[in-house]
Amino acid sequence: MLRSNTCGELRPEHIGQTVTLSGWVQRARNLGGLTFVDLRDRYGITQLAFNMDTNSDLCGQARKLGREFVIQAVGTVCERESKNMQIPTGEIEIEVSALTILNAADTPPFTIEDDTDGGDDLRMQYRYLDLRRGPVQRNLLLRHRINIETRKYLDSIDFIDVETPVLIKSTPEGARDFVVPSRMNPGQFYALPQSPQTFKQLLMVSGIDKYYQIVKCFRDEDLRADRQPEFTQVDCEMSFVEQEDILNTFEGLVRHLFQTVLDREIGDFPRMTYDDAMEKYGIDKPDIRFGMEFQDMAPVTQNQGFNVFDSAEAVLGIVVPGAASFTRKQLDGLTDWVKRPQIGARGLVYCKVNDDGTFKSSVDKFYDQDALAKWAAHTGAKPGDLMLVLCGGLDATRKQLAELRLHMGSEMGLRDPFDFKPLWVVDFPLSNGTKTPSATTRCTTRSPRPSPNTWTYRFRSRGCRANAYDMVINGVEIGGGSIRIHDKDVQARMFDLLGFSPEEAEAQFGFLMNAFRYGAPPHGGLALGLTACAPCSAASTPSATSSPSLKTTKVATS
Amino acid sequence: MLRSNTCGELRPEHIGQTVTLSGWVQRARNLGGLTFVDLRDRYGITQLAFNMDTNSDLCGQARKLGREFVIQAVGTVCERESKNMQIPTGEIEIEVSALTILNAADTPPFTIEDDTDGGDDLRMQYRYLDLRRGPVQRNLLLRHRINIETRKYLDSIDFIDVETPVLIKSTPEGARDFVVPSRMNPGQFYALPQSPQTFKQLLMVSGIDKYYQIVKCFRDEDLRADRQPEFTQVDCEMSFVEQEDILNTFEGLVRHLFQTVLDREIGDFPRMTYDDAMEKYGIDKPDIRFGMEFQDMAPVTQNQGFNVFDSAEAVLGIVVPGAASFTRKQLDGLTDWVKRPQIGARGLVYCKVNDDGTFKSSVDKFYDQDALAKWAAHTGAKPGDLMLVLCGGLDATRKQLAELRLHMGSEMGLRDPFDFKPLWVVDFPLSNGTKTPSATTRCTTRSPRPSPNTWTYRFRSRGCRANAYDMVINGVEIGGGSIRIHDKDVQARMFDLLGFSPEEAEAQFGFLMNAFRYGAPPHGGLALGLTACAPCSAASTPSATSSPSLKTTKVATS
Repeated sequence: MLRSNTCGELRPEHIGQTVTLSGWVQRARNLGGLTFVDLRDRYGITQLAFNMDTNSDLCGQARKLGREFVIQAVGTVCERESKNMQIPTGEIEIEVSALTILNAADTPPFTIEDDTDGGDDLRMQYRYLDLRRGPVQRNLLLRHRINIETRKYLDSIDFIDVETPVLIKSTPEGARDFVVPSRMNPGQFYALPQSPQTFKQLLMVSGIDKYYQIVKCFRDEDLRADRQPEFTQVDCEMSFVEQEDILNTFEGLVRHLFQTVLDREIGDFPRMTYDDAMEKYGIDKPDIRFGMEFQDMAPVTQNQGFNVFDSAEAVLGIVVPGAASFTRKQLDGLTDWVKRPQIGARGLVYCKVNDDGTFKSSVDKFYDQDALAKWAAHTGAKPGDLMLVLCGGLDATRKQLAELRLHMGSEMGLRDPFDFKPLWVVDFPLSNGTKTPSATTRCTTRSPRPSPNTWTYRFRSRGCRANAYDMVINGVEIGGGSIRIHDKDVQARMFDLLGFSPEEAEAQFGFLMNAFRYGAPPHGGLALGLTACAPCSAASTPSATSSPSLKTTKVATS
Repeated sequence: MLRSNTCGELRPEHIGQTVTLSGWVQRARNLGGLTFVDLRDRYGITQLAFNMDTNSDLCGQARKLGREFVIQAVGTVCERESKNMQIPTGEIEIEVSALTILNAADTPPFTIEDDTDGGDDLRMQYRYLDLRRGPVQRNLLLRHRINIETRKYLDSIDFIDVETPVLIKSTPEGARDFVVPSRMNPGQFYALPQSPQTFKQLLMVSGIDKYYQIVKCFRDEDLRADRQPEFTQVDCEMSFVEQEDILNTFEGLVRHLFQTVLDREIGDFPRMTYDDAMEKYGIDKPDIRFGMEFQDMAPVTQNQGFNVFDSAEAVLGIVVPGAASFTRKQLDGLTDWVKRPQIGARGLVYCKVNDDGTFKSSVDKFYDQDALAKWAAHTGAKPGDLMLVLCGGLDATRKQLAELRLHMGSEMGLRDPFDFKPLWVVDFPLSNGTKTPSATTRCTTRSPRPSPNTWTYRFRSRGCRANAYDMVINGVEIGGGSIRIHDKDVQARMFDLLGFSPEEAEAQFGFLMNAFRYGAPPHGGLALGLTACAPCSAASTPSATSSPSLKTTKVATS
């Protein structure tokens, strides 16, 4: 070992010991007779002290050390005169007796500090230097802890980690697969898996009744903030279970992760139907850290002579507690905000409930105080609150108001990043009715909620719901899954309804349907996203560079 | 849950409980008034009992169950009349009160038994059925346990699991990389990594001083028993270490795995130099479960008129204890065996040491009893032993005798598969002197053993040794690694010696060499192979189908 201790380890109880440390020069300070060098490694920073009076040669060497030089120092642990209680090693320093330069360093292109002067592009170009910074290393460590604690938990309840292949059979429909030409079979291609969906279902047929894998998946999609060509998911599947069993199992996993990784208890883990989520929050991944649930304003706004509302399919509102104090300028700002193309509303109607019980609205011309009082009674708005109302087509209005609600939540400080509110959204629609590439992994295997004998009609009318669920935390979809179809006849009918010809179904899923002939157990599962975190962008794809966090990548699979 | 218990769980203490089991019908036995069904899941087999007298309808249903039907049975745990002490659940059975067929099954194409009637091809075609068999499931479970215990051990000593990218930069030299065309950048390609070597070295530059990853790697090579296009390795790297630190760390890992997974203490973990291994065993991965070390027979065989030996560069022998009883037919068989093209020897000389101290040799014409006594004295052969001697060029003779030694070890029953003898082979040659594709990952980063100032000459004369080591267990290379070059000038000189032009070195390794400018710590590591184990061959590559075992895939990297 080129060190006896790490740079984060020494404390007053080590005073008097001779130690060897190795690490990087964070900074050197020349104070005339004394020179101090902050030595850094993954574990912390320790101060090295050099005294011009007692060893001028050594001190002279120390003064020549540049930033990020890799050095080894031998010395004695001493008590510091001026202690730094900001860092764990701040009570001691090392009186150095020998110094070795293990490797010199060019001046780094940006400072290796928590708050760096390097811009995004420069830090991505020198990713290996960016990774030396504390916040990035802490992200890597967080991801590692999530990874290992996930495995420990799943192992403790009898899940088996089974590796599935990466070079797999390319299917004709997989237009957005990455493909790999075969040298042994010219003109033929492997595909990289978009998810191990088929494999894990085959493992269920094999009797591996609890499977998991933390696995790379690949999608040849255009880059977006939460979509990357290669991403990682915690992929799970169970046999002989019903939906509630899966929800309980992975609620347990998430509780375990919060406890062990963040030392935090999370509270309730409520279930909400997809229909409720759309009605109350206008979105299938609601952030329930705060209220502001949608109100159907049609009963108190329509048929009173205001044509904009009268002609709208939907009039929806939210009550923002305590926002009656918003200035005209702030309200104009909100109106501009909802009219931006990204949101796309045509306008915003507001109504303040003043402290004295009177109302001030942007549609005072059409609604008198009595009418506005009915709005407040209908929505439960109290003095000091602000009602915000959007109207238009139902789907569009929900989408716009969902964005506005999140925006108001942020504005009012209701989205504490250290508060975690998990949620299961259940009873997703069986299908959006179209055969899309993503349908191949997401919708085709979902089992319908009514009995197999009644769902065909409902499917056609789009009223059919599936045994499908998403895990949502703070408005972010962490993952999702479903109870699968395990009957070959139901599966064949599903392919037909989705618009697959028998030939297409056979080409893409024939393997799975054949396996279902030989005793497939009832099964279901889910996949949770784990944000990609590559050590080095410049040697890899430009995409795989985001930092990991509990806000994980959206996962469309499973 | 569609079950209250698994099929491996119930014992006499559960007698009287009402339980629900789900699983596959292993077999049904109709004994007139009684019908017994063996119900199987991953955890075991439990006997279901149906009585024609008490419930003829139910018993009638049970009689119609086919092999591999998936069923759910509700019933009471009862004591068995005729106990089966061969299985853990053999003292109880379930008196079934309700039976549900969860899924019917076609007759499987081979029997789902430990000893199946299915041939290799059929079992690969129906891999998902083969995976139902006990031996294959136990292999999956063994692999899972090795995986999780490896992670626990490395986590406990501060290693961080960091994921590296799969879609990486394709380099011009990487002729045997798998490549992935980029849709976004037509005409350009990603490569799949042959190993994360560059990435893990960059992580060392980043200060992640203990890195590990259990990672898929890809090589577009022709198939061999121990080579597959995609394979998995336990990939590790450490900073601020010397060779002995790495050996001790991973000796610790292997001890931990044997203890926790196989409940077994392994003994010594000796180190042997490459030169010693070649001299004593003729191979760089000796099986040291038994002796039969090579003897240089030249001093006692040459210059005595036997031209075959006199003209040979090398005359090497082994002593096989207790094999003097081999018959003439057996000895002829051995001669034929070494003359097969796979071995390629021109002949075999033997010399028995009879119990009475006399000798019987195939070269009695050239060597009298006195001369043969000198052979025995030289090799330490005792009465009852057999000396086997090969000759020819040094390299070829070593290779042939190494094969013969292993063959004799097997013949004499000295290679107990439940005996594990690990070994480090150290001080590998710095390079075989050629620039091959495998050199790009294996040899280019190895640090030379003499100081950087003296190794250039030795390199040219091929006498230079590297800080490189392999872990070998029972003659199988489990993995290997090296202390890396961390100095950009030494690295540049190495590329030059290996025959890379500066342009080639820059194109392939410029990124790493640039990183070395900014403070690269001394570092080294290794990779251990973990045999591939795909759940399904027919939906994937034909290669990824072998069963996992402690005899892991050879790993050429790291």
